[in-house]
Amino acid sequence: MEVITKINEMRTKVFSVKDSKKSIGFVPTMGALHGGHISLIRSAKRENDVLVVSVYLNPAQFDNKDDLDEYPRQLNEDIELIRKEEADVVFAPGTEEMYPDGFCSYVTQDKLTDTLCGRVRPGHFKGVTTVITKLFNIVKPDRAYFGQKDYQQNAVIKRLVGDLNMDVNIQVCPTVREEDGLALSSRNKRLNPDERRSALCIYGALLKARAMFASNITDAKEIIEEMTAMIKNTEHTKIDYISIVNDYTLEDLSSINEKALVAVAVWVGNTRLIDNTILE
Amino acid sequence: MEVITKINEMRTKVFSVKDSKKSIGFVPTMGALHGGHISLIRSAKRENDVLVVSVYLNPAQFDNKDDLDEYPRQLNEDIELIRKEEADVVFAPGTEEMYPDGFCSYVTQDKLTDTLCGRVRPGHFKGVTTVITKLFNIVKPDRAYFGQKDYQQNAVIKRLVGDLNMDVNIQVCPTVREEDGLALSSRNKRLNPDERRSALCIYGALLKARAMFASNITDAKEIIEEMTAMIKNTEHTKIDYISIVNDYTLEDLSSINEKALVAVAVWVGNTRLIDNTILE
Repeated sequence: MEVITKINEMRTKVFSVKDSKKSIGFVPTMGALHGGHISLIRSAKRENDVLVVSVYLNPAQFDNKDDLDEYPRQLNEDIELIRKEEADVVFAPGTEEMYPDGFCSYVTQDKLTDTLCGRVRPGHFKGVTTVITKLFNIVKPDRAYFGQKDYQQNAVIKRLVGDLNMDVNIQVCPTVREEDGLALSSRNKRLNPDERRSALCIYGALLKARAMFASNITDAKEIIEEMTAMIKNTEHTKIDYISIVNDYTLEDLSSINEKALVAVAVWVGNTRLIDNTILE
Repeated sequence: MEVITKINEMRTKVFSVKDSKKSIGFVPTMGALHGGHISLIRSAKRENDVLVVSVYLNPAQFDNKDDLDEYPRQLNEDIELIRKEEADVVFAPGTEEMYPDGFCSYVTQDKLTDTLCGRVRPGHFKGVTTVITKLFNIVKPDRAYFGQKDYQQNAVIKRLVGDLNMDVNIQVCPTVREEDGLALSSRNKRLNPDERRSALCIYGALLKARAMFASNITDAKEIIEEMTAMIKNTEHTKIDYISIVNDYTLEDLSSINEKALVAVAVWVGNTRLIDNTILE
């Protein structure tokens, strides 16, 4: 496995892969790998000739400096995890490589980024769309893999790829959960044992929404009220948003007569967690 | 020569060219071709295996609806001109193809777009960077050709390509001029004979700047004052800007001790014309 830190070396590698007509599967990560990432890496490994995993903690997508400072960093451990999955390349550029002095070009999106996490994390999605455009241009993947937990991010990236005519197939893989249902996230490491117990209410609220919908309750307000009560009754939590939206436009739904995304963001102590489920 | 109007057909063509390891030279135009475009097309033809010329009047880069409405349109004539140059493909998509309903992703730039034409044409460069990103992603050229007349646009595009890690070599070719010195532009067609005579003062002012610099005058203000006087003394003109800036950062210079761009935008009647020269 090669560990590449320079964009030009990555390009050279990509050109040689393309020359040999092999397909490239790509998993972009911010490091601090967990089972969710591993499941993406395994899908990419299975479905492509060459597997590239990037590890780059992109400062541009952090709207909150504390969140960036506290984000777990473990590059050497990540590289060993990726090596076990028999990846071909780890691409781990530094920030001076990705955003050199004088950098001034950005990719932005409206509509899909005005809602849900975009409402409370200004600049976050601009950071995501810019770095993903750069990484796609450098790695030139045939397929790129993302987890369903980041539903809005994936919707934004899919639209980006379509709008800007990029040749990348976006593969969204199911959210991987702990046995008790908590969605895997690099941020889970920050939870103390009490908070870890409290965090479970997020998945509980999503299950509640599924159960209500299964018993023919389609009024979004009613479902959101039940979810809100469940989470509010749990210690250490503060709701950021609970929304039920059209799964494609991400616009609020009052009644669930079409495929709907139930998306939740909750602070548990000082850690903000997100999760979602689809109702259809 | 193929005339392609659909993005998917263009992609298929591009993939077959790439498969045969041929290089692609690309000249993006808004149509209304003149000798300046032809010189770009000939350079691209000479330096590449396959020549693609696009004709797309991009509404997103017009800040002024009248300017868009009055921009000359002559697709069939353009296609015949391109055919004579033995291009392989004309790519002429419609706007519903380039900006379908729900389109919401844009490429933006700061710094380089805040000055010169960016100051007076809000949104113009966002339209340029977005459409160029799309066209580059669709056509995947090895080299793309632009005329020096659009100096700021070219600086913006070069920075864009670097910042977003696109694999396109940007070739800037000299401005082509009428015998009397007026820079060729699709907008020249709108000038009446009186205005056409007046328009010459733009090139005259640039020659004046060159002459002053050649006689060791390096004070930007002094040069700009002379140029301003020359243009103000010409009927039908209104100065938009006359600037002397660093050729890379496009920041104003007070004294010309480094490579400098002298850039001019002047209204002649109802037509806005730009031109420039480099001092070094």
